[in-house]
Amino acid sequence: MSNTTSGNDTIDFYFDIGSPYAYMAATQLEGVAQRTGMAVRWKPFLLGAVFKAVGNTMPAQIQAKARWMFSDLTMWSEHYGVPFKLSSRFPLNTLKTQRALVAAQRIAGDAAVAPFARALFHAYWVDDLDVSEPAVIEELAGKAGLDGAAIAAALDAPETKDALRALTEEAVARGAFGAPALFVGGQLFWGNDRLPLLEAHVRRIREGEKR
Amino acid sequence: MSNTTSGNDTIDFYFDIGSPYAYMAATQLEGVAQRTGMAVRWKPFLLGAVFKAVGNTMPAQIQAKARWMFSDLTMWSEHYGVPFKLSSRFPLNTLKTQRALVAAQRIAGDAAVAPFARALFHAYWVDDLDVSEPAVIEELAGKAGLDGAAIAAALDAPETKDALRALTEEAVARGAFGAPALFVGGQLFWGNDRLPLLEAHVRRIREGEKR
Repeated sequence: MSNTTSGNDTIDFYFDIGSPYAYMAATQLEGVAQRTGMAVRWKPFLLGAVFKAVGNTMPAQIQAKARWMFSDLTMWSEHYGVPFKLSSRFPLNTLKTQRALVAAQRIAGDAAVAPFARALFHAYWVDDLDVSEPAVIEELAGKAGLDGAAIAAALDAPETKDALRALTEEAVARGAFGAPALFVGGQLFWGNDRLPLLEAHVRRIREGEKR
Repeated sequence: MSNTTSGNDTIDFYFDIGSPYAYMAATQLEGVAQRTGMAVRWKPFLLGAVFKAVGNTMPAQIQAKARWMFSDLTMWSEHYGVPFKLSSRFPLNTLKTQRALVAAQRIAGDAAVAPFARALFHAYWVDDLDVSEPAVIEELAGKAGLDGAAIAAALDAPETKDALRALTEEAVARGAFGAPALFVGGQLFWGNDRLPLLEAHVRRIREGEKR
């Protein structure tokens, strides 16, 4: 896999397709990268395993929070001008989905992850598809220009499992406890709503470097 | 107490002095009010009771989240240009603090709440004072131009307890599950980080009304 630490010119984006706020952040990353000149490394992890590791629970477990989340996500989608439809399958077991992403990375390289992840996010959070289904995964991989059959065949391979576990442990070791988790160097930015703080942080670093 | 529902020209701000994100939001509300032309109603509630009512827990209970929170709050303070110092007394039992605020409202009227709350927030989140101490509360009330002795004397009065309980139940009935909880009409905005969404929401309402 890629390096576990990043410099101040790289954003490490840990995400799980099952997180609606990770989807929201994913729609904005290209803009962040353009405005800041930062590179983005897309790092699939398994959010359920992160929760278990740190003793956290999914936000939607609190009923009042789940109700608010839907209106909040609708407002973010209007704010960003991106489509959003609460999935009828939420919450979803994304084990196969996340494995598919690390399999794509192993088979087709780092550059394959972002377009495949965008296709999966869109399928789940706009088209309401079951992106935990190997057949759906295979088709979406094909549409993203990848070898869908090869990825489907690699879903349960030991090296795929190991790679996803390693990325998840890497995120937890760096301090992640939820999704999306974005890092610039050692600094964690948790949540789609922290993208403006991330940009401000990068600007401060740059200004400091210029002096 | 004041009305339980608000129109689209009012922001209801439910807060607990013990919440650092409520402090951050409190530093911004005047600006939000000026930019949007909205009135703000400052509504003290007891966050611990809200958590209990909805089955939520305080964010800092997750160790990894607590670690992140400190850096996050530091970044917000830089972003806003406001002072911040993590209290050595966090988390604090703010029962008396919140009662003092409703007592001030009963004794001196709605307009007394905001300046007293700002003084308490600053004392806790900048000066590291124990704002659960009646003597500290009395002194800060006096500095905020209130009758400190009268407020201190009212801390354990049944009508004070009832008023705080009523505000807390009101917030929970409207859908609050954490702090700060801001409402515009029926719409909840949870968290300091949602102030930009709140402003965008108000702008959309206004534009809709103009048509």
